[in-house]
Amino acid sequence: MKIGIYGYGNIGKGVECACRQNKDIELIGIFTRRDKSTVKPIFDTKVYSASEVKDFKDKIDVLVVCGGSATELPTMTVDLARDFNVIDTFDTHANILEHFNNVDKVTKESNHIAMISCGWDPGMFSLNRLYASAILPEGKDYTFWGRGISQGHSDAIRRIEGVVDAKQYTVPIDAAVAKVKNGEMPELSVREKHKRECYVVVADGADKEKIEKEIKTMPHYFDEYDTEVNFISMEEFRKDHMGMPHAGFVSRTGFTGKDKEHKHTVTYSLSLDSNPEFTASVVVAFARALCKEKARGTTGCLTTLDIRPRDLVTEDYNELLKHMM
Amino acid sequence: MKIGIYGYGNIGKGVECACRQNKDIELIGIFTRRDKSTVKPIFDTKVYSASEVKDFKDKIDVLVVCGGSATELPTMTVDLARDFNVIDTFDTHANILEHFNNVDKVTKESNHIAMISCGWDPGMFSLNRLYASAILPEGKDYTFWGRGISQGHSDAIRRIEGVVDAKQYTVPIDAAVAKVKNGEMPELSVREKHKRECYVVVADGADKEKIEKEIKTMPHYFDEYDTEVNFISMEEFRKDHMGMPHAGFVSRTGFTGKDKEHKHTVTYSLSLDSNPEFTASVVVAFARALCKEKARGTTGCLTTLDIRPRDLVTEDYNELLKHMM
Repeated sequence: MKIGIYGYGNIGKGVECACRQNKDIELIGIFTRRDKSTVKPIFDTKVYSASEVKDFKDKIDVLVVCGGSATELPTMTVDLARDFNVIDTFDTHANILEHFNNVDKVTKESNHIAMISCGWDPGMFSLNRLYASAILPEGKDYTFWGRGISQGHSDAIRRIEGVVDAKQYTVPIDAAVAKVKNGEMPELSVREKHKRECYVVVADGADKEKIEKEIKTMPHYFDEYDTEVNFISMEEFRKDHMGMPHAGFVSRTGFTGKDKEHKHTVTYSLSLDSNPEFTASVVVAFARALCKEKARGTTGCLTTLDIRPRDLVTEDYNELLKHMM
Repeated sequence: MKIGIYGYGNIGKGVECACRQNKDIELIGIFTRRDKSTVKPIFDTKVYSASEVKDFKDKIDVLVVCGGSATELPTMTVDLARDFNVIDTFDTHANILEHFNNVDKVTKESNHIAMISCGWDPGMFSLNRLYASAILPEGKDYTFWGRGISQGHSDAIRRIEGVVDAKQYTVPIDAAVAKVKNGEMPELSVREKHKRECYVVVADGADKEKIEKEIKTMPHYFDEYDTEVNFISMEEFRKDHMGMPHAGFVSRTGFTGKDKEHKHTVTYSLSLDSNPEFTASVVVAFARALCKEKARGTTGCLTTLDIRPRDLVTEDYNELLKHMM
């Protein structure tokens, strides 16, 4: 299976690493929108300019489109889907249907296959929400994220005057998590589920009190949460806050029985040292499945919800029956 | 979707309940091998003799075959697959491939579709082992069961002379679970993973010391485990040990990154008030997907690993993209 990486940020680097862990995958190259001479790959992967990608039209089975969900992927995935089978990590939940329809239209016209919104949420968490609700049609779902960095919230803090750099950790609240995992099915407000921890480096002479107030009252991002603001030095920031760990879980509690007298709780949880590398590893597995679907003649846009699990791996089906079942 | 239940034990009763939670399902009837006048369904389901089942050849979309894995399902599922689309909960892991091949052959000849080994282990646990190994090809898997009743171990105790009744709980050992959930990837012996708790009612004058020794030294069943034997009265047994709770989890820890420097742990866990009702609920969701596969012309034997997740639910795909992704 021949893979290309379009866009070489954290996810792109993760895909580069993941390709080496899968022997059936050949990584054709990285396509960058920057000056290609400035891009240093992790391994000996070839680097091309994004403008050269069309020369690889028939040399790549799946192009992994690594861009931002806010402004890049909505057009980038659609454009590339005219010439390639593509997969992306579009994660703006509210706009998934719209993005799906756009990509579906183009891929059906161009006779390609695509997958959008691959990763862990959306992606593996979506799958687990679906499985649990299929098994327990009467029940209640919960999703918790963290402890981990929210890119969007960190960016929002960095836009405040006087802030040099910042990281925001989304932190699930222990008491709420315990109730959910225990199957108590609590009603939880936004504030009761997660809190927000901010680590902020400010310019010399900046008004910390004003910055802290501005963070804590920022609409949508922070105002509905209990937010902790920690001002730290650049040294401390570089030492303790450059990693990209994340975590989270989805849980469903539902009922069965004659009088719904029996309760069941299903939980899928992740603990990740590197959010982008795990996301990229999910993408690479689903890219494999996408190739198999394409070989069957499938075109159009898919999601993780469409994929036969057996297509995600290279093992022979008899091996799966012997060792996975 | 028209469902039939063949065999009316705990799983059959669970299927009867689960059908009522799914509006697209019509339960045609229960087929029993006992005198049908002695079978009292939970709801107003019609009860037929097993010998009448062939009259329903074209009136049932999927027949749920509820029998024991040791002696019944290997022939029962194969026989019924000549006339019906079937689904079973065959759970003898070592013989899944053989049972699969037998059912696959018959269903391909008879132009039917089948699913074997549906439930949670095998079933949902198998799926989660597969997903996690696809995402993290380099890693280590763990499966823990319990606290919950093992039917096979309870039966083994009941065969001992002087035992009136018995229940055996498989109990995961906290220290091992903590290490696994923490991503420590421990090497664990059989004894370090699970212990066995037995609740035994004996006949008047029975030799408890001899019974206890016989349990603890029983090859395969108990000799490799730390086993606790509790002799209790029939009253206590009836009060505390008639439920069928179970639990368990599968967990995989694996590595990604340039030098495999990042560790990730994926865990899928279940906590069940009623093992057979949860198993039956899984079966009913996969029976729905089986109908959809049959409508596409698929024949032969499948497992949970073959099913597109979206086929498990009734919701329109756009709804899934809006609310599940």
